[in-house]
Amino acid sequence: MSSDRNYEREFVRTFFTSPTAVGGENSAKMLQSAAQLRGMQAPDTWIPDNEDATAPSMRAEGVQNLVEVVSEHGADFPGEIHPRVVWHRDDPSTRYEGFKQMLEITDPENGAVEHIDGFVIPEVGDLDDWKKADEFFTIIENEHGLEEGSLSMSVIIESGEAELAMSDLRAEKGKPSNNLERLFLLVDGQVDYTKDMRAMTPTGELPAWAELRHNTSRGASAANCIAVDGPYDDIRDVEGYRERMTENRAMGMTGIWSLTPGQVVTANEAPLPPKSGSWLLELDDDEIELDDEDGRQVYDGDELSLEQVGDDSYVLRVDGEEQELDGEELHEELLDLTTYVPSMDDIVDSMEEFEAAKEAGKGAIAMTQATTLVIDGVEVDIAKDRMWDEATYQAAMTPVALFQDVYEHRPDQHDALEEMYGTDIVERAMAVGTDD
Amino acid sequence: MSSDRNYEREFVRTFFTSPTAVGGENSAKMLQSAAQLRGMQAPDTWIPDNEDATAPSMRAEGVQNLVEVVSEHGADFPGEIHPRVVWHRDDPSTRYEGFKQMLEITDPENGAVEHIDGFVIPEVGDLDDWKKADEFFTIIENEHGLEEGSLSMSVIIESGEAELAMSDLRAEKGKPSNNLERLFLLVDGQVDYTKDMRAMTPTGELPAWAELRHNTSRGASAANCIAVDGPYDDIRDVEGYRERMTENRAMGMTGIWSLTPGQVVTANEAPLPPKSGSWLLELDDDEIELDDEDGRQVYDGDELSLEQVGDDSYVLRVDGEEQELDGEELHEELLDLTTYVPSMDDIVDSMEEFEAAKEAGKGAIAMTQATTLVIDGVEVDIAKDRMWDEATYQAAMTPVALFQDVYEHRPDQHDALEEMYGTDIVERAMAVGTDD
Amino acid sequence: MSSDRNYEREFVRTFFTSPTAVGGENSAKMLQSAAQLRGMQAPDTWIPDNEDATAPSMRAEGVQNLVEVVSEHGADFPGEIHPRVVWHRDDPSTRYEGFKQMLEITDPENGAVEHIDGFVIPEVGDLDDWKKADEFFTIIENEHGLEEGSLSMSVIIESGEAELAMSDLRAEKGKPSNNLERLFLLVDGQVDYTKDMRAMTPTGELPAWAELRHNTSRGASAANCIAVDGPYDDIRDVEGYRERMTENRAMGMTGIWSLTPGQVVTANEAPLPPKSGSWLLELDDDEIELDDEDGRQVYDGDELSLEQVGDDSYVLRVDGEEQELDGEELHEELLDLTTYVPSMDDIVDSMEEFEAAKEAGKGAIAMTQATTLVIDGVEVDIAKDRMWDEATYQAAMTPVALFQDVYEHRPDQHDALEEMYGTDIVERAMAVGTDD
Repeated sequence: MSSDRNYEREFVRTFFTSPTAVGGENSAKMLQSAAQLRGMQAPDTWIPDNEDATAPSMRAEGVQNLVEVVSEHGADFPGEIHPRVVWHRDDPSTRYEGFKQMLEITDPENGAVEHIDGFVIPEVGDLDDWKKADEFFTIIENEHGLEEGSLSMSVIIESGEAELAMSDLRAEKGKPSNNLERLFLLVDGQVDYTKDMRAMTPTGELPAWAELRHNTSRGASAANCIAVDGPYDDIRDVEGYRERMTENRAMGMTGIWSLTPGQVVTANEAPLPPKSGSWLLELDDDEIELDDEDGRQVYDGDELSLEQVGDDSYVLRVDGEEQELDGEELHEELLDLTTYVPSMDDIVDSMEEFEAAKEAGKGAIAMTQATTLVIDGVEVDIAKDRMWDEATYQAAMTPVALFQDVYEHRPDQHDALEEMYGTDIVERAMAVGTDD
Repeated sequence: MSSDRNYEREFVRTFFTSPTAVGGENSAKMLQSAAQLRGMQAPDTWIPDNEDATAPSMRAEGVQNLVEVVSEHGADFPGEIHPRVVWHRDDPSTRYEGFKQMLEITDPENGAVEHIDGFVIPEVGDLDDWKKADEFFTIIENEHGLEEGSLSMSVIIESGEAELAMSDLRAEKGKPSNNLERLFLLVDGQVDYTKDMRAMTPTGELPAWAELRHNTSRGASAANCIAVDGPYDDIRDVEGYRERMTENRAMGMTGIWSLTPGQVVTANEAPLPPKSGSWLLELDDDEIELDDEDGRQVYDGDELSLEQVGDDSYVLRVDGEEQELDGEELHEELLDLTTYVPSMDDIVDSMEEFEAAKEAGKGAIAMTQATTLVIDGVEVDIAKDRMWDEATYQAAMTPVALFQDVYEHRPDQHDALEEMYGTDIVERAMAVGTDD
Repeated sequence: MSSDRNYEREFVRTFFTSPTAVGGENSAKMLQSAAQLRGMQAPDTWIPDNEDATAPSMRAEGVQNLVEVVSEHGADFPGEIHPRVVWHRDDPSTRYEGFKQMLEITDPENGAVEHIDGFVIPEVGDLDDWKKADEFFTIIENEHGLEEGSLSMSVIIESGEAELAMSDLRAEKGKPSNNLERLFLLVDGQVDYTKDMRAMTPTGELPAWAELRHNTSRGASAANCIAVDGPYDDIRDVEGYRERMTENRAMGMTGIWSLTPGQVVTANEAPLPPKSGSWLLELDDDEIELDDEDGRQVYDGDELSLEQVGDDSYVLRVDGEEQELDGEELHEELLDLTTYVPSMDDIVDSMEEFEAAKEAGKGAIAMTQATTLVIDGVEVDIAKDRMWDEATYQAAMTPVALFQDVYEHRPDQHDALEEMYGTDIVERAMAVGTDD
């Protein structure tokens, strides 16, 4: 069946890397603290990183640290564990090194392998290069008596040829001479991709690489993998990180790299529907969230102004354009300028309502969202209708399916989710859409 | 010859779907009214939709309605007729159902097949899946004594793998074991594509999917098909629909889905050159159409201000930046800030002039467009020169070729076109560019 | 080795076309003047254009002019010489004509071939079409006793199928029956691409085609070629040309077509790091370069305003949003709003500092950039820290590697470069990063 995946999880929100060995007294300290993260601070996938995050001279020690920490804490870690080893499409000695790292980490005598879900292979090239890595996985599984295909393989896309390879993946996956069905995450690595593409920006910031992200998301969709965006370096810029994830989700890319437990929390929460709904004012390309004051939505910026000039006569000024409107026209105009971001509660309500309507033989129903806008002290009641049909219902199912997947696979987050939404909403969210 | 198409039409502006069976007294009423549309309300391609627009329980009745309505009205319908049947890349029973629907609709005894130009296959996967559908077309043609390849096939791109398939289409089309030369429209289906990609937006609106549209347009160009954009749900938002089409045409995607006869009118007219030219003010990313008042172009917004402060001295303020200019500098500055949208009349004039110049051995000529700008009461005469060479001429030919194609294939729109442009312009537009 | 190229140069900034024959007394005059360009006015690649820039009736004469001018001036020309001949994927007689032009131009008896580095083939289709051209190169090399593969081949991407072909290039290049290793430049040709895609814009301007440019840059990266953007028609619009190149470099596309010696100068200079650093204010999507006045960065627009209202209390207004801040909060806010564009001097300093730190065993160091902002007369000192690690260092290497490549291959530009940066910076820039 084409939608079967080689792993249990349907969604991965977070990809959190830790150096396997750092300078100082206790070289394993970053691994030890990461291994003990729980709840919203714990990632869906944890990546003990024996490549770029760890100095080349420390990597042998890194393998030993990894084996010890995963042996001790792996059983209790709430996410999956996918160490990153070294690899390079242009360098056979690096590839052989990566093979030896994997062979050692998975040695049953070391006691870590039962908690290892797979490995992350960086710097891959075209598919023939992916197959070389896949063959090492197969050899390792065979040598160590593991089931063939049981270790998943994730790759970092950080070259033009790897980007192109994703287009051919679907056709190559089923072939008898490889085990590429083990593929799990397709992860963008924009720092090295930028270098490989020899791209430059005046300030040294990374380019946005929208096409790469689209192609990764599409490649993952076509080959039943999961797409993950690369690191967001500016750790202080939480708002920017959230905006990046909103952009990514609109591309079908739900996962993102996290560099700190703080980023993990932000990225674990971001794709979940919000606790409360909110109203947005949409001015050209600018979206402004209105302040909710006792259920009334108040705008107090100056890009929009409204004045009542007669009994049923208003002057609305948007972006320097002024128009005189009667009450009904004003209502229409404001409807066009506003949009609603539904809460989890709203989504579950609407889905339940639609399920009931479908049961009763109706194919489409109207859902209404009403509020009072307050602009320059003038109050206007608006009510937005939206038709719900099967397609709307299916689209709404995506965030709910994500929620259900998280709830199922992350018992350690149950408390946080129940605190966020309330037990009632959590229960209802787990119940909708489960008939088909 | 690589630019041969398997169909007569070079352009498709409109793809209009109608449910084949609806609830109520007369389940065929939507088909009946659609079949009798004429002129600008009638689409270039009409899609009696026996898939998503029709409830699953009504689809058997839908096939019968379709056969009856097309038998009765098909001969007089001014556009092509391409019913949509059920199909799914992941479900053989749906595919078999689609085959049976096509077999029944094309049965010569039913009298509809002579008016059926082809079928639309939704939810296709990769090319091997397209070939399964193609094979059913071939079997049907053979069973019913139709010429092999005479039924065209259009597909809806609503999965990542279908998007990827478009890249390989050109290479597969000529192969001896398929009849993929029958391919006609590549149509984006963003609702299900969004679901397949598991993309989410906060408000539930569809993502813009610019890359998908580019790839569809490119795939169509490379494989001699025609690209069509998906449905635009907000039927009231005529301005938004027009903007979407303007964006699409800049990608080489001329066609768009239409959900109502009103949208058909808008989409039939949109790609035709305008009746009157207009001047635009280009401020950053903002484009403002100037008001024509007796041939003078008046700006009365507040993003730009102009004041005459001396005999040959002006203060121009743009986006908060003020500069003092003499008359010539002002002229230069305003030339840079303005652009002209040519009318059909302008385009035909320029093409005729260039054709005459070419005849006389000249390779490039300057065309001038002059007007008077009025900003804050200050009048400035400007004249924009544009060099026309062979490339400019060829580029201008695209909208004219579209017009000629429409005029040739849609006699029912002659009256509307002549009313819009005047008989003289229509005649001259039909005559230019026809030498090569 | 996968990063070997079939040519010496790693970067091409400029692709300058000249008609091979024009009307008037001396039909070779454009070639003659181009052949004598030196320094920043001379392009990295010069393209005597026997295709679109030259009238069809003049092309036979064009071949003779080309042979004469290149024989006379080729030895002294500082860039590479790649004539463009005629070609069309859909027309065998044009292809045969192109073959004959190349055969004549490279005839050893004509004396030009030793200065010809390769040819530019326009209007290519899919890879099988590229291979037809490649085969003609091979025959020519064989007939004229040249080393097989010694003539490089560049192509113009001006069709959907050629865009798609770039995805398969890497896999085809090594095959024994072709010599596609000779490929050098992948050049976008947006005028004909727009026509081939049948794209239209209201004003007749070319679409931006961002996806095409991404795909060209990626294709070049994957197949070890060099990506070059198409012509920028508005020769007067130097600022627009520069912005286009900044956009391109963020996509990894360093080269661009130049239509005049003036554009050559602009495009030769644009990818080099600036002589002086500068501070930018980043407001939404708007970037404003601050005026440096004696080392203080002065903003005097009105999108931002700042007022000191108490001892340690300020009111900052951005985009109509007002906030009251103390000195530390103001410092934070302004740090977020500003960014620094490093000069060549800054880059070299930082690289040297990082190299020294690495030598001393440190993996990451902080670099600080400090200045004084002046907004509405209020002065604020800010200091921006940036962590430099191996990845930052490698990214900074891209513009420096470009500089080194230019310096090595263009002795005729040494004076200009030394005048621009000073001898000291030039020497240090040539020395960094050369250990690995």
